[in-house]
Amino acid sequence: MIPESQTLTKEQLLSRIQEVGRERYHHQHPFHLMMHEGRLNRVQLQAWALNRYYYQSRIPMKDAIILSRSEDREFRAAWRKRIVDHDGERGHEGGIERWIRLAEATGLNRERVQSATEVLPAVRYAVDAYLDLVKNRTLLEAVASSLTELFSRDLIALRMDALRKHYPWLSGGLDYFTARLDQAPEDARFAFDYVAEHAHTRAEQEAAIAALTSKCDILWAQLDGLHFAYVQPGWPPPGAFVPEEE
Amino acid sequence: MIPESQTLTKEQLLSRIQEVGRERYHHQHPFHLMMHEGRLNRVQLQAWALNRYYYQSRIPMKDAIILSRSEDREFRAAWRKRIVDHDGERGHEGGIERWIRLAEATGLNRERVQSATEVLPAVRYAVDAYLDLVKNRTLLEAVASSLTELFSRDLIALRMDALRKHYPWLSGGLDYFTARLDQAPEDARFAFDYVAEHAHTRAEQEAAIAALTSKCDILWAQLDGLHFAYVQPGWPPPGAFVPEEE
Repeated sequence: MIPESQTLTKEQLLSRIQEVGRERYHHQHPFHLMMHEGRLNRVQLQAWALNRYYYQSRIPMKDAIILSRSEDREFRAAWRKRIVDHDGERGHEGGIERWIRLAEATGLNRERVQSATEVLPAVRYAVDAYLDLVKNRTLLEAVASSLTELFSRDLIALRMDALRKHYPWLSGGLDYFTARLDQAPEDARFAFDYVAEHAHTRAEQEAAIAALTSKCDILWAQLDGLHFAYVQPGWPPPGAFVPEEE
Repeated sequence: MIPESQTLTKEQLLSRIQEVGRERYHHQHPFHLMMHEGRLNRVQLQAWALNRYYYQSRIPMKDAIILSRSEDREFRAAWRKRIVDHDGERGHEGGIERWIRLAEATGLNRERVQSATEVLPAVRYAVDAYLDLVKNRTLLEAVASSLTELFSRDLIALRMDALRKHYPWLSGGLDYFTARLDQAPEDARFAFDYVAEHAHTRAEQEAAIAALTSKCDILWAQLDGLHFAYVQPGWPPPGAFVPEEE
């Protein structure tokens, strides 16, 4: 263990962050394990796509909050890329549109997904907690919370293989993940460099790690909600997405 | 007068907004009148450029707050343009950089301007009140507060003529205004259409007009601060920009 009084080197900080990823990132969640083993059915994938749409739809709002908190226009210009990646720009569709097409590939109607009326309350609260985090903690912690992107490339690569293998009918809807394969690592590098540079004390480094841990909790809790409602024992709350009889 | 119970037509709403502009926009402020009559000296223009930099530097943060509050990605994509206009993008400098060059043309050093350490407290509070407004009032009111751009084109055109005529040594620094001649009316049209479409009741229309009035106060109060500190009677508070002996 590194003594509490000692500021971490950049390598030590990265190592602590990767430890959080190994232990707490949602690649370990039973819902994802089942997905990757081909043990989810179509309606469970529908529930996943529909609920996760709510998360996707809030990402540009989250990034705009972070942008609004920085007095540094170079930081803002760099962070703006994330909003463009998700919202799209003239001639280029963004991640939200790609996610909608994934949801459509599961057999859901676009309007139903975008209305977000059938999202699980547990998912909604977790996502809203993310917006609260970036609004109310320090800018350093807000940036650090995005560091889950350091772990997402491996998960996405694994997932794309698994989805293609086990759910070939979904293969046409994977553009979202293809784009994220490049976007996420680039964003993660920028965010990590920012955190390494701006966390000057051990206390600030620990706050950044704690923010990343909170973000892992936020991702995990969304899958808890899905798992309880649609897998085991399968009890969606009133008003939430209900699988139609097949 | 239109009865209080009656929702305004789009034309009536525009007419009320233009009335606010005529009565309360800062084109009427003594500091601007003196500027346009050529009665300000170089250090007073320095004080203006240095203080207004603080306003300029907060505009993208203000727009990011507005962006973060919208659930509509088409609105967000349209509003994002404002952030790009001010922060710039690869290969295109933005309004903040252009404002710095205006300040440099008055004879100020770039670092001194960007540090914002000598900004008048009165200016700082007024600008910060603008960020509070867009954060804490409704999204409709936040958007409506930007409607001062409906009035800015005429003021900018007048000002460019006046600056060229009375302060020819400043002519090289006017790119900021040239760009705003096109940007402001385009932004204003979008914002007005949004307000007209989203203010469904007379109460909402009045709230939008009140937000625009608040914004006019915010612009006016900045010039009050400048006028008291650098024109009449000329009493800058401790720590604020002090003209050097010429």
